[in-house]
This record gives sequence, structure tokens and C-alpha cells, in this order.
Amino acid sequence: MTKSNNKSLSINKGAVVNDSINPNYQSKRPSDKSLDEYVNGILKGDRTTLSQAITLIESSHEKRRNLGQQILEACLPQTGKSVRIGITGVPGVGKSTFIEAMGQQIIQKGRRLAVLAIDPSSSRSKGSILGDKTRMQRLSTNEHAFIRPSPTSGTLGGVAQKTRETLLLCEAAGFDTIFIETVGVGQSETTVHSMVDFFLLLMLPGAGDELQGIKRGVMEMADLIAINKTEEETFRQAKRAKKDYENALALFPPAESGWEPKVTTCSALKQTGIDEIWSDIESYLKLTRKNDFFEKRRRDQAVYWMFETIHQELKRNFYSNPNVSKHLKKFEESVKNGSISSFRAANELMSLFRKQ
Amino acid sequence: MTKSNNKSLSINKGAVVNDSINPNYQSKRPSDKSLDEYVNGILKGDRTTLSQAITLIESSHEKRRNLGQQILEACLPQTGKSVRIGITGVPGVGKSTFIEAMGQQIIQKGRRLAVLAIDPSSSRSKGSILGDKTRMQRLSTNEHAFIRPSPTSGTLGGVAQKTRETLLLCEAAGFDTIFIETVGVGQSETTVHSMVDFFLLLMLPGAGDELQGIKRGVMEMADLIAINKTEEETFRQAKRAKKDYENALALFPPAESGWEPKVTTCSALKQTGIDEIWSDIESYLKLTRKNDFFEKRRRDQAVYWMFETIHQELKRNFYSNPNVSKHLKKFEESVKNGSISSFRAANELMSLFRKQ
Repeated sequence: MTKSNNKSLSINKGAVVNDSINPNYQSKRPSDKSLDEYVNGILKGDRTTLSQAITLIESSHEKRRNLGQQILEACLPQTGKSVRIGITGVPGVGKSTFIEAMGQQIIQKGRRLAVLAIDPSSSRSKGSILGDKTRMQRLSTNEHAFIRPSPTSGTLGGVAQKTRETLLLCEAAGFDTIFIETVGVGQSETTVHSMVDFFLLLMLPGAGDELQGIKRGVMEMADLIAINKTEEETFRQAKRAKKDYENALALFPPAESGWEPKVTTCSALKQTGIDEIWSDIESYLKLTRKNDFFEKRRRDQAVYWMFETIHQELKRNFYSNPNVSKHLKKFEESVKNGSISSFRAANELMSLFRKQ
Repeated sequence: MTKSNNKSLSINKGAVVNDSINPNYQSKRPSDKSLDEYVNGILKGDRTTLSQAITLIESSHEKRRNLGQQILEACLPQTGKSVRIGITGVPGVGKSTFIEAMGQQIIQKGRRLAVLAIDPSSSRSKGSILGDKTRMQRLSTNEHAFIRPSPTSGTLGGVAQKTRETLLLCEAAGFDTIFIETVGVGQSETTVHSMVDFFLLLMLPGAGDELQGIKRGVMEMADLIAINKTEEETFRQAKRAKKDYENALALFPPAESGWEPKVTTCSALKQTGIDEIWSDIESYLKLTRKNDFFEKRRRDQAVYWMFETIHQELKRNFYSNPNVSKHLKKFEESVKNGSISSFRAANELMSLFRKQ
């Protein structure tokens, strides 16, 4: 099967299935604290406690996950007060450098920044806190920044769910700006879009759409397209790309936000154009708070996440069921070697599930 | 929220929820037959019985759906013998005309063709058998062709599930060639790709990728790109487009099938290049049957559909639960107006679900 289809396969398996095939998963257990200790630690903004709570949220271990959920429930009243920004772009567009540059600037403005990632497929995300910290060295040592890599296992739905919950914990811990980074080639953008207020798409100067692997759907979601790596030697290409993207955006129906998506150029490396992007974000927030789109979108997202939470929970119940987990691999094999139809296998697994 | 995100919302709701808001849905009930009558009718290739069985498969009505499942189970031994071809492209690329043209040709070669569609979002698909028949007039009156529009309601997952089951019934009814049509702008291509042997992407001469709205993922899935509407006045553009797409394809990693995706030109209107495309499909089948990729892919797809069937069934159980359906809208409202968190709502609905 092609890469694309394998992705669609993994997306359709249950989180627990994937957890179970991730040996590293046990290695990130937090020390044991009481619910109150966790909640108070988080509300005090203690990053160690925050990290440990996130690890509970990400755990495939029933008891730990439940504790994580209780912590989240207790923190919910303190959530929702941040600005949530999705940042995407193909590998090589310079997301990390951009996040470093913009992160520095807004922290200087007195903001507290949490950087999360959604990246179910990437091997980079396999437990590589170090990987991420080295990607963003200056931020990772900044006391006003908190960097958390993508959950190390699970389906897109599962990973997104955990990231959404992590986002809320970060808000409870007093981070007023959340960046959610995703690699702009998969389906994850739609998911990120379902949890952010503003969607920033990073592009490269010159290279055509098909090479940059950006799908129309993603461009259509973008509130701002920033052509990164616009430097002296790439200036002309960047100018042409800007025009191209502006023409493309002009073809899309007007966004419900009332905001007209912009195309701008910047260089994260040379730290040019970053400040302008932030003021664009601020104008967007001003506009959408004024016309109530900001609130409406958050409400729609809440409904979306109600359904997502239910669906994730349904899958979790199923795959964590002893009868199911005991026989799943066997049925998967039988289907693979053709000795049983996918429907028969699904039905028999469902009745094993119902038995208990 | 933007169109893209709304789509992601609808995709994440349960099939039954959507069925329940589709008033037309009751209008397509089949006459009552016994299981045997259905199965024998289908195996005899009786199209009326086939249509009625498909309507049972698509039904949101528990009893009818179960009968549909029994029919499917009974037919399974007679399935799998067709060539399954996915056909996609943006609106306006001429999919219907192309399907008419190629359909005519292969029927003349003695094949029996079923044309299905996956199109969860489209309003066209809302019960418009007529709509589809008028789109493909000659085929729809041909006794060797069977045209069935996309299921009229449900999520992408639900619609895909029903289409996959319809595909199997058509095979049991002796259709040896299945076209599955989808509008090449959504996520549905990945789903179609998970049920076909060959993936054909129709493109327009000239227009750039961003205008055609084709995402890299879709191009990467294509076994053949056909630039339709290649006629005298568009010949030069088509030639340029062909080169562009060939260059783009060259950037992709080699496909596991061992097949090198081709780019070709055709005119469904003038009926030129269609025959060549069919022989390309035949060479593909020859190659992949020889190197066993054909079988491997079908096995992988079977596993994928085992998981899909389970997930659809889990959702169906949940949304058809009386407690849930009774309170769902209320909770959705409370989440929308912010009086309850999405997590709390999900948890309370889950406990209502578990109660019964």
C-alpha cells in the first residue's frame, strides 16, 4: 500500500492498540502526587507538575489516565483564557526557527508561551522531548516558555485529543499564548484548526504548491500565509510567490470570520517580518472578538470536541476490553490471510466486546 | 468556522445523528422480501433486488440494517472478483462524461459496470438517483451498467462503509468492474483509495494545482493522471500540464506496487485517449497480480475495513442508544452556550450510554 494509505490505516486503529506497540511508552511515568497536589501545582504554574499531569493525560494506563482526567476537570474553570495559534508548513519551511523567533518576541512583550505539537506519524515525535528542545534551544531554556512534543503514540484522533487536553492544562498553568505546531502535509491541519483561534501557514519562496505539498484545504484554513526564508537572495521569488498565493486566496469564498486572509513575507533566521505577523494576529483577534466570531468559533470547537471525546472514549473502551485485546491480533491476522472476512471479524470482535 | 472545519465537524458526528436530520431518508424503503429472496435475486443479477438490498444497507433503521447485513454476509463468498477503480477530480473536470465514455467502451468489451459514488458533503447526492442518471444518461439505460448515487446521509466514515458494502453486493450481482467516483477536494480520496485497486485522477489542462484544488496526498495516490478535456484548442496547455505533473510525480517515492504512475491526456467528450487509459489499467492489473501487490493491497484493505466496521458499529451503538439520542441535542446545546464543558458533556453522555 502507498504511504498515504498506510497513514489512513494507522489513523483508523484505536489509540490503545498503538500504545501497546510502543515499548518506550512506559518510560515517562510521573512521580505520584495527590489530585490536589497536581491541581495546585498546575494553577501555581509549576512546570514540573504540569509536565507530569500531561504525562498522565497521555498515559494508556487506565488508572493514570483517569487521574489525568480528574486533574483536567478540576482545572477547567481556569482554562480558555489564552490565544491559541496553529502553525503549519512543510518540513524544511523553518517552523522551529520561526517559533523561536516569534516566541522570543512575544515573551519580551510579557506573554507566557506554550508550544505543543500534533504529529502522529512523525518518528521525531517518538518521545523526543530532547529532540524538540534542541530544535528550539533558546525557548526551551526560557522560564516563560513551555515546550511539549507531540504525544508519542496513538491515532490522529487520539493524539489530537491529548494535545487538546494538554492545551487546557497549559492554560490553567497560566500560559496565555499557545502555539500548536503541525507538519503541513497530513490531515492533522483540520484537527489543529479545530482547536485554535488563528491558523498560520508558513510557505517557502518560489517552490510551487505541488512541491510544497500544501493542500487547498490547508490554504483555505489559513488566516495568514507567511513566506518564510525571505532573504536577499530569495527576495524576487518570495515576491512572486506572494502574488501567486494572493491570487489563490482571492478565489476562496470570504471567511466567516470577516477577516481577509493575508500573505506576508518574513525571515525567522534574520528575524524580519515576525513582529508584523504578530500585529496581524492581534488585529485578527481584535476583529473577531468585536464581531463575536472568536466566541462562536470556540463554541463550535467545544461541540466538535464533545463528539471527539465521545468517539475516542468509545474506541478506548473497546480496545482496552480484555476479550478484545486478547483476540484482536488473531482476528487481524485471519483477515490478513483471508481466512475470514473483515465484516465477520468485526462482528465477532463486537460480540466478544459485548459479552463482558 | 470555515467550510473546511465544518466538514471536519460533520465527519466527526455519528451516522445516526445525521440520518435523523435527513427527512428524505424514509422515502427509499424497499418492498419486503425474505433473506433468501434477496440473496438469490442478487446472485441472479436482478438489479431491482440489488437496489433494494443496498437501500437496506443504507438504512438507519436497526431491523432493516440488520437484514442488509445478513444479505451481505450471505453474498460475501461471491464477492472480490471485480476490478475496483477509483475515479476522482475537481468539479468541472468532467467525471460523469468520462465515466460515460469509458463505461460504454468497456461494456462493449463485454464487461458489466457498477458506478458508485462517495460524496458525504454534496447536496447533489441527496437522494438524487435521477440526478446521477441524468448525469450519465447512456450508461443509466444500459442493461450492463448499474448506477448508484452516494448514500444520502451520514458521516464520511459511515458513507464510505455503506459504499464499501454496496461494492460487495454489486460484485455478488456479477458486476466485474466497479467505478467509485469521488469529488477530489475532500478527505474522501483516502477512503476511496482504501477500497479500490486502481486510482485514476482526472485533471484539467492548464489550470494550476492550487486552482484545481488537488492535494499532494491525492496526486501521490494516483496510479494514473489523465488530463481530460484535451482538445484542439487546449492541446498546448494540456501538453504543458502533462510535463508539470510528470515532474511532480517524479518527486514522489516509488510506489510499493512497482507501478510507475503515468500522466496521459484524453477527451471524454471527443472520446479520445479513453481506450489507452483502459489498457494502462489492464497493464497495471497484470503487473500487480504478477508481483502479488494486488492481493497484498486487498488484504491490507480488508484489515483496514475490519477496524472501520468496528468503529462505525461503536458509533452506531452509541447514537442509537435511547438515553443518548434522548439527551444528545440538549448536551450539544449546553456545550454550545458554554454552560457545560465538552468533556463534562461527553462524560455524562457516556454514563447515560453505559447505564442502559
